[in-house]
Amino acid sequence: MLRFITAGESHGKCLTGVLEGLPAGLGVDQDFVNLQLQRRQIGYGRGGRMRIEKDEIEITSGVRFGRTLGSPVGFLIRNRDWQNWEGIMSAAPVTEGADKRAVTRPRPGHVDLPGALKYHTYDARDVLERASARETAARVAGGAFCQLFLGSFGIRVGSHVIAIGNERAGDEHTNLEAGAILGIDPLSPVRCADAAAEERMKSLIDSAKQTGDTVGGLIEVIACSVPPGLGNHTQWDRRLDGRLAQAMMSIPAAKAVEIGQGVEGGDSTGLPIAQEVSRRASRTGRTCESGFT
Amino acid sequence: MLRFITAGESHGKCLTGVLEGLPAGLGVDQDFVNLQLQRRQIGYGRGGRMRIEKDEIEITSGVRFGRTLGSPVGFLIRNRDWQNWEGIMSAAPVTEGADKRAVTRPRPGHVDLPGALKYHTYDARDVLERASARETAARVAGGAFCQLFLGSFGIRVGSHVIAIGNERAGDEHTNLEAGAILGIDPLSPVRCADAAAEERMKSLIDSAKQTGDTVGGLIEVIACSVPPGLGNHTQWDRRLDGRLAQAMMSIPAAKAVEIGQGVEGGDSTGLPIAQEVSRRASRTGRTCESGFT
Amino acid sequence: MLRFITAGESHGKCLTGVLEGLPAGLGVDQDFVNLQLQRRQIGYGRGGRMRIEKDEIEITSGVRFGRTLGSPVGFLIRNRDWQNWEGIMSAAPVTEGADKRAVTRPRPGHVDLPGALKYHTYDARDVLERASARETAARVAGGAFCQLFLGSFGIRVGSHVIAIGNERAGDEHTNLEAGAILGIDPLSPVRCADAAAEERMKSLIDSAKQTGDTVGGLIEVIACSVPPGLGNHTQWDRRLDGRLAQAMMSIPAAKAVEIGQGVEGGDSTGLPIAQEVSRRASRTGRTCESGFT
Amino acid sequence: MLRFITAGESHGKCLTGVLEGLPAGLGVDQDFVNLQLQRRQIGYGRGGRMRIEKDEIEITSGVRFGRTLGSPVGFLIRNRDWQNWEGIMSAAPVTEGADKRAVTRPRPGHVDLPGALKYHTYDARDVLERASARETAARVAGGAFCQLFLGSFGIRVGSHVIAIGNERAGDEHTNLEAGAILGIDPLSPVRCADAAAEERMKSLIDSAKQTGDTVGGLIEVIACSVPPGLGNHTQWDRRLDGRLAQAMMSIPAAKAVEIGQGVEGGDSTGLPIAQEVSRRASRTGRTCESGFT
Repeated sequence: MLRFITAGESHGKCLTGVLEGLPAGLGVDQDFVNLQLQRRQIGYGRGGRMRIEKDEIEITSGVRFGRTLGSPVGFLIRNRDWQNWEGIMSAAPVTEGADKRAVTRPRPGHVDLPGALKYHTYDARDVLERASARETAARVAGGAFCQLFLGSFGIRVGSHVIAIGNERAGDEHTNLEAGAILGIDPLSPVRCADAAAEERMKSLIDSAKQTGDTVGGLIEVIACSVPPGLGNHTQWDRRLDGRLAQAMMSIPAAKAVEIGQGVEGGDSTGLPIAQEVSRRASRTGRTCESGFT
Repeated sequence: MLRFITAGESHGKCLTGVLEGLPAGLGVDQDFVNLQLQRRQIGYGRGGRMRIEKDEIEITSGVRFGRTLGSPVGFLIRNRDWQNWEGIMSAAPVTEGADKRAVTRPRPGHVDLPGALKYHTYDARDVLERASARETAARVAGGAFCQLFLGSFGIRVGSHVIAIGNERAGDEHTNLEAGAILGIDPLSPVRCADAAAEERMKSLIDSAKQTGDTVGGLIEVIACSVPPGLGNHTQWDRRLDGRLAQAMMSIPAAKAVEIGQGVEGGDSTGLPIAQEVSRRASRTGRTCESGFT
Repeated sequence: MLRFITAGESHGKCLTGVLEGLPAGLGVDQDFVNLQLQRRQIGYGRGGRMRIEKDEIEITSGVRFGRTLGSPVGFLIRNRDWQNWEGIMSAAPVTEGADKRAVTRPRPGHVDLPGALKYHTYDARDVLERASARETAARVAGGAFCQLFLGSFGIRVGSHVIAIGNERAGDEHTNLEAGAILGIDPLSPVRCADAAAEERMKSLIDSAKQTGDTVGGLIEVIACSVPPGLGNHTQWDRRLDGRLAQAMMSIPAAKAVEIGQGVEGGDSTGLPIAQEVSRRASRTGRTCESGFT
Repeated sequence: MLRFITAGESHGKCLTGVLEGLPAGLGVDQDFVNLQLQRRQIGYGRGGRMRIEKDEIEITSGVRFGRTLGSPVGFLIRNRDWQNWEGIMSAAPVTEGADKRAVTRPRPGHVDLPGALKYHTYDARDVLERASARETAARVAGGAFCQLFLGSFGIRVGSHVIAIGNERAGDEHTNLEAGAILGIDPLSPVRCADAAAEERMKSLIDSAKQTGDTVGGLIEVIACSVPPGLGNHTQWDRRLDGRLAQAMMSIPAAKAVEIGQGVEGGDSTGLPIAQEVSRRASRTGRTCESGFT
């Protein structure tokens, strides 16, 4: 059984992760883990912080000479801007007059107001620092270790962007073969297979930034070479669909998730869906696909 | 902390549920629990089994004189057709020539083939009996106890059908006030607020049955009077969105789930969505809504 | 991962157990499970209830044709005296004048007083019914399934009584070979290898019953053919010593537990203990032993 | 619900701990946590490493301005001798000729042999580094946070040494009042209330060191001002006795644990024990006591 737990505030000293349950002897390619952290940071339109910082993992336990030991893998991702935040996020008590950069005007759609009510604090920073999307950096690192583990069975996981706001990749770039998805440049800033759509997506992001707006999107995630029978149907909290949905929807900005034909299946009847799945499988070589909205 | 576990095969002697962690002194209205079990069975177009059986809960522990004891609530839901299945699902060894009703032709889209591969059995019944949707009856009973618990805080949970296949309720029947959703007749066979659409939905279901087809759908679930701050942002596996998504997607036929504007949010930018949420809130009295596709 | 949960009050309708995680295809010998339940009941000096009742398991799920299915094993142990308790332990509300056999005089050393304080009840029966030692019957059944599972690897678990109160088996009957322990008649009422000591133990139990007293004891439990490396040193809550101690000390009357030389080791230095362990191993064929006080 | 997980090898870069579930607003006295780490190191007869190193906690998350945030508390305990071990314990691959200080001669009574067999390694260091008692330093820090939490309810936890090997404190120094135990100098190297016995214990430890032997011992741990009803009788894995036993017995050198009269109770009958508990309670002011062998 794998256990994974993270700690760390957005502007704290570091993020911490502990991943327990990996078998001993698994090769740990730190460059692969760091590449995933980099991918998280280069998305087109990300904030300035992403540009000044470059996240890197510091493995503190569970790995020796490039291989796992079977003991818990511990790691840190340091805050490279910590010297500018040390006073604001200090664990130790501070003097009265210190600059605490207290957040007293709660942002709508964030944890600020309910969190301040729940945790009895006047400074919403006490809660928003943990609710921040930066927490997902520790998940990316933990997930990268899991990808290395899955890779030892030949399982590969990939993703691409299907839509940003109302700009959508063309049909010929959405029902892709697995190889085409896995082959997209990992450092692509938008990660859309349709170059023309990608340009339109960039423009949309630029204009949203100019107007202080945000923009939604749609990504597809696939897993290849998954053996039949992975998952467990015997209890409500072991089913794979549910566990994948939990993982995706616990990402702060993720508000919908579908497996396979998902949303489309709700509007339709079973026979055409089954035919379409069969048609795509024969064309793309994918017999199983998971799409997360 | 609540723990909930179920056991039981579709045509076995009974389903079993254990719900642990309810506080002592909670009033247990068995009629309410049985009403939820009944609601599960009366959906328009359900199979014949639903008509001959009437599920009822048999509480075996954790409740005394109509109130919880603080100890685990144990319950059974009996298979009313057990005498016809006793030989086929016997826990004891049976004689060689017995009618085992072995399933050797796996159904597509079901657990039959991967399950038989995984569990090394020639009779897919060994796996399909647990993978059956009947397992959700135990969840409905467990969920009904949780509704009684939530009800003690004034929280109410309700749902209605927005679409069956391509038949969709009119706009004026989809963005409903909370009271309108909670007020729908619990024994309505389709549970759609739009009477005209409901008739079209019934026809669609009838024709799907005639052609041996199935038909998808879209339901909305709401929770009212939820206090601000419910949920937990501090760890990836505690977040409420993720846990709700896990619960919904672990239902065999559920293939997509959204929270709030969900799928719609992916196609759009943030400001219009925020305005729309605000507009609906002021019109319907709902400040928070959760929609599960 | 195995999960095990039980429910049920001492005089309720039945005890319920769910054991999840056993692999598919394990042979289930119900007679073996029932033999363990019988062993629990025949201990010399047990109360009258033990004599009138004979506990038997009723498997309700997870087993078909004498083999596990991989789905949760659900079982019941019925209260054979239920008709005499139905009114007192009814889950449904009862009429005012009913005989509730309320317990309002708390017994020292039991959960009665702290439980009544904690759960806000005037009738200690609301808590003592679950705190009763009868709850261990469900554990015995669950443990019997686990023994069947361990047995498929050739692992055997056995026990014998070393002392009852100040009556102790002779030295030649305490450091027994594994085979001698496993060979004790499973239906022995005291389960002591020293026949003379057993007679003295019976007399001690008889006199304690006459004076309304109770009497302690000391048992040794062994596991044979355990492969090296079973257990897990990598996290505080996975270590086998701790998990065994938890299981033993959660039995209401168990107040001390030791592994190997345990208590004796505290009074001594390491070298003599190591020599003694080595000496016993060469004499008894046991290279590993666990003793639970 | 509290969750606690640790990571870290004995000679690795640092130990890591994550403690999740502490409420927000709890005062965090780092000096108190460091005092507990110091107490762990000053025990009479500890190895040389204890003298050159001084463990200190470095809080990396979950605490701001001296108070918990409600988010996971993350902390590190650095290896102050890391520069001498960096090559031996490097997470990165190393060149062939490196000094790996491989351990190929397994020590009896340690994880070395079963661990090497289980994890398929020729260098027992791969397993013994995690199985080391140093891992308990992270538990001491986590436990210190929990003591601060318990302290906010007025609950205090204390301990003293009753015996080292066959040297035992006098009776008048073993059945102590709670205040006497809590009042022992936290930096006492033996922590025995009987000064004369303490001198004999030191001599015994000295002579064991000279002969390359080790020596056992017996400690008593008490918790004061515990409210009635703490703990949970409703499920086998929630009972407090079991959870305390698990925590104690998961400490590598702990091989026996008792609650209250424990071992003594096994040799006796119930009435004298009840009278003795009552007599001690009236003399010492302790109505509840827990002793861990």
